[in-house]
Amino acid sequence: MQDTTDDPLIIDGVTLGSRLIMGTGGAPGLDGLADALIASGTELTTVALRRYDPTTAGSLFEIVEGLGIRVLPNTAGCFTARDAVLTAELAREALETNWVKLEVIADEETLLPDPIELVEATEMLTARGFSVFAYTNDDPVVARRLEQVGAVAVMPLGAPIGTGLGILNPHNIELIVSRAGVPVVLDAGIGTASDAALAMELGCDAVLLATAVTRAQDPVRMARAFSHAVKAGRLASQAGRIPRRELALASSSMEGRPDL
Amino acid sequence: MQDTTDDPLIIDGVTLGSRLIMGTGGAPGLDGLADALIASGTELTTVALRRYDPTTAGSLFEIVEGLGIRVLPNTAGCFTARDAVLTAELAREALETNWVKLEVIADEETLLPDPIELVEATEMLTARGFSVFAYTNDDPVVARRLEQVGAVAVMPLGAPIGTGLGILNPHNIELIVSRAGVPVVLDAGIGTASDAALAMELGCDAVLLATAVTRAQDPVRMARAFSHAVKAGRLASQAGRIPRRELALASSSMEGRPDL
Amino acid sequence: MQDTTDDPLIIDGVTLGSRLIMGTGGAPGLDGLADALIASGTELTTVALRRYDPTTAGSLFEIVEGLGIRVLPNTAGCFTARDAVLTAELAREALETNWVKLEVIADEETLLPDPIELVEATEMLTARGFSVFAYTNDDPVVARRLEQVGAVAVMPLGAPIGTGLGILNPHNIELIVSRAGVPVVLDAGIGTASDAALAMELGCDAVLLATAVTRAQDPVRMARAFSHAVKAGRLASQAGRIPRRELALASSSMEGRPDL
Amino acid sequence: MQDTTDDPLIIDGVTLGSRLIMGTGGAPGLDGLADALIASGTELTTVALRRYDPTTAGSLFEIVEGLGIRVLPNTAGCFTARDAVLTAELAREALETNWVKLEVIADEETLLPDPIELVEATEMLTARGFSVFAYTNDDPVVARRLEQVGAVAVMPLGAPIGTGLGILNPHNIELIVSRAGVPVVLDAGIGTASDAALAMELGCDAVLLATAVTRAQDPVRMARAFSHAVKAGRLASQAGRIPRRELALASSSMEGRPDL
Repeated sequence: MQDTTDDPLIIDGVTLGSRLIMGTGGAPGLDGLADALIASGTELTTVALRRYDPTTAGSLFEIVEGLGIRVLPNTAGCFTARDAVLTAELAREALETNWVKLEVIADEETLLPDPIELVEATEMLTARGFSVFAYTNDDPVVARRLEQVGAVAVMPLGAPIGTGLGILNPHNIELIVSRAGVPVVLDAGIGTASDAALAMELGCDAVLLATAVTRAQDPVRMARAFSHAVKAGRLASQAGRIPRRELALASSSMEGRPDL
Repeated sequence: MQDTTDDPLIIDGVTLGSRLIMGTGGAPGLDGLADALIASGTELTTVALRRYDPTTAGSLFEIVEGLGIRVLPNTAGCFTARDAVLTAELAREALETNWVKLEVIADEETLLPDPIELVEATEMLTARGFSVFAYTNDDPVVARRLEQVGAVAVMPLGAPIGTGLGILNPHNIELIVSRAGVPVVLDAGIGTASDAALAMELGCDAVLLATAVTRAQDPVRMARAFSHAVKAGRLASQAGRIPRRELALASSSMEGRPDL
Repeated sequence: MQDTTDDPLIIDGVTLGSRLIMGTGGAPGLDGLADALIASGTELTTVALRRYDPTTAGSLFEIVEGLGIRVLPNTAGCFTARDAVLTAELAREALETNWVKLEVIADEETLLPDPIELVEATEMLTARGFSVFAYTNDDPVVARRLEQVGAVAVMPLGAPIGTGLGILNPHNIELIVSRAGVPVVLDAGIGTASDAALAMELGCDAVLLATAVTRAQDPVRMARAFSHAVKAGRLASQAGRIPRRELALASSSMEGRPDL
Repeated sequence: MQDTTDDPLIIDGVTLGSRLIMGTGGAPGLDGLADALIASGTELTTVALRRYDPTTAGSLFEIVEGLGIRVLPNTAGCFTARDAVLTAELAREALETNWVKLEVIADEETLLPDPIELVEATEMLTARGFSVFAYTNDDPVVARRLEQVGAVAVMPLGAPIGTGLGILNPHNIELIVSRAGVPVVLDAGIGTASDAALAMELGCDAVLLATAVTRAQDPVRMARAFSHAVKAGRLASQAGRIPRRELALASSSMEGRPDL
């Protein structure tokens, strides 16, 4: 059964066969990471430039390239728009891609995005020809602003990075989706498969996660779990779920002629 | 990728290749139902005897048999242990199976199970040689009692039948699972894919649903969604999820030597 | 402002000025307990007979009597209907009251009520002239059955005893309330003030708690908190809250003539 | 019992006897509003300048002044920092107060605050000598930024204005409180009493609401409810609640010597 080939994700004109984007952060080693990437079925992976040396044999770069997975460099560790632009420029030069996952973090304690620096950086990068995937908080206003200044995808968090708390405010995610003209990718906070399914049911176009797989006890198995979860959630969002009801409803008539 | 063949569900000595059990209630017609059953990948389906006439050509029975799906007759519409036993006897005779999904409903308003009649019926049916799949509320005490009087599977509800409210009390489901010596099947209340994934993550051995598929706008697509969701939740429950944390955790070191 | 004198709680023909019922379990000592009872404003307190020796000077009994608080003996520690009836008989003799809070626990691990023994014990006690306050799970079917066999109040749990998890299944509590002809008292699981307010908003007639006060760091202050919380929830349940809306609604007109 | 006189709220050097701040928006008429204000016990009320004509006899202004309630003018209806500053200046002149509740809304559909305009407006107003009460989203980063540029209080929303959805993301509110050096006031989204109690338990210093009272079926009764709820939550936050436990804990020893 081919579940998603008829329903590809298109971001910035590029078609991706999987709606699961898997980051590489948190992996204890390269071997396990490759297996997990394969098991996830992802076609796009984020890489922090600082951990990424394309010249080293057996590097993360070679592995990802060998797997045929597209690379989305991120600006992890940047605290200002200026830093993020600089990091993005280095990544573009080293990796020959205009794509960048923009992270501008407010402080090391919460690792939450700084919306003001983020909007500024998105404007600057867009003007420089980058395709910006903007990692943001879950504020519908900020999400729309990012789109207005040129982001090709908005990536709201479900919960702070690494917490595994899932989607703390589904209402906001739904609001972001309902007003977005670019793909919405749920990023950060995912802990387990049902979180990813929920993200898709709320209308997200894709899910990005890293530590939920790389730090699971069995990363390969968890990668397979998420592969199924994203498909499950996507299909469910398209299939038109039954309405929630406060009172019970018999699935079969209790009296008279049977309904089959 | 073969996700579940190495992890079959065994109930009452019978091996099932899918952990999704799909009921037939609520379906508007037989044709769509067959497609949905196929798409779900289920190997076990519940059928209400009263809606079930094995002698009619093109009947539900013929369809299910043609698909190679095992039948689990239920006692839907019974309000007393006595009624349920009578219905089960008729089903056994008609369908030549000892299996029965025991439903003893307290009233038509809530369609909630009556725990007292349920325990009594389970005892009576077990004594008569039935393998009882007991549909019950989410009370850990009742679940254990049902196992003690012979149920081969306990099937707690997530929410009242047909509400689509999901799992109202995950704490109870976890408690039931942690104390169970027989398979636990989450039954009733499932509305969408993430509900089913969550049920499996809580430790359930399988999920049973009907209207969430049969009354979805696109039953076949929703059946596929649940097929993935149950696999996703099962794999996640085995993979050892990351712990929930109150504070953020960087996926990559913020300083010094990179961790890859 | 007299908030509740015009809205007394009537159980079994007795009028109580407070809708907070405070148990005595978990208290580290008698002095602090008395202060907490006073601060709570309760007019009814539960006492375990086994911890209760009316003949001892300075006993819990003397204190409660001195405070003018009515005593509701409970059958804590009973595992069968038979035990519970015996304990209730002893309590009636010792305390000269027909009232009994019926607890029949299934096991020491969960401390959850055993619905089957509970219904049986309620029937037996009612036949013996007791007024039974039945501590039960949150199953609407069991709650109704208890009322049918004579309970003067049904007391569903919010969560298992001592967990402080609040109300795990508000849907069930609402369902119990909507079908009850006797007072519904939320019992067990309360952790903090908002839990008690929510119980009342769901339609409960009163809240019973013990360890949430007796084991708080500052029991007297927490008793005051709950006194306010129960009043808050009761008033809110009567005042007709605004409906929940998915979309924002300006509190003032954004254009044209002001609305004041 | 004097519950709060020993625990006043101090904002910008001013001492308030009540931690409930009540807005005037949504009221169908002035008479009922006065009664609700009195019943709430509030000592601070927000007023939209545009609905506010100090020269009219029997105006809202006269009523509030007559009740001895301090006025906090807001900038409702402003969409830019520039508009907000202009409105604040007019309010200062008309009402002779440096206090302003700063609202800068992003759009009429969501009525959500615009964080970028908000930070800018806070800086501008602070430079002009205003004491800024900044109504903001629930982003901990924005809340801290507002404090850094001079806000005397940060006022995160629980949910969008007028929705009555309560506190959608308690995790964020706790994070804001834990990092704040100025009072945190939960503003917007409150639907009923338990929401307000929860806000205080999360550590907020006060709660601001309007439509939850003014549009309740019985505004005076609901105002009383909130008065109790805020006290309940405040006391509970100070009293040190019992920890949440996954497993049950007997409130009294099950065996051996009684603990009282």
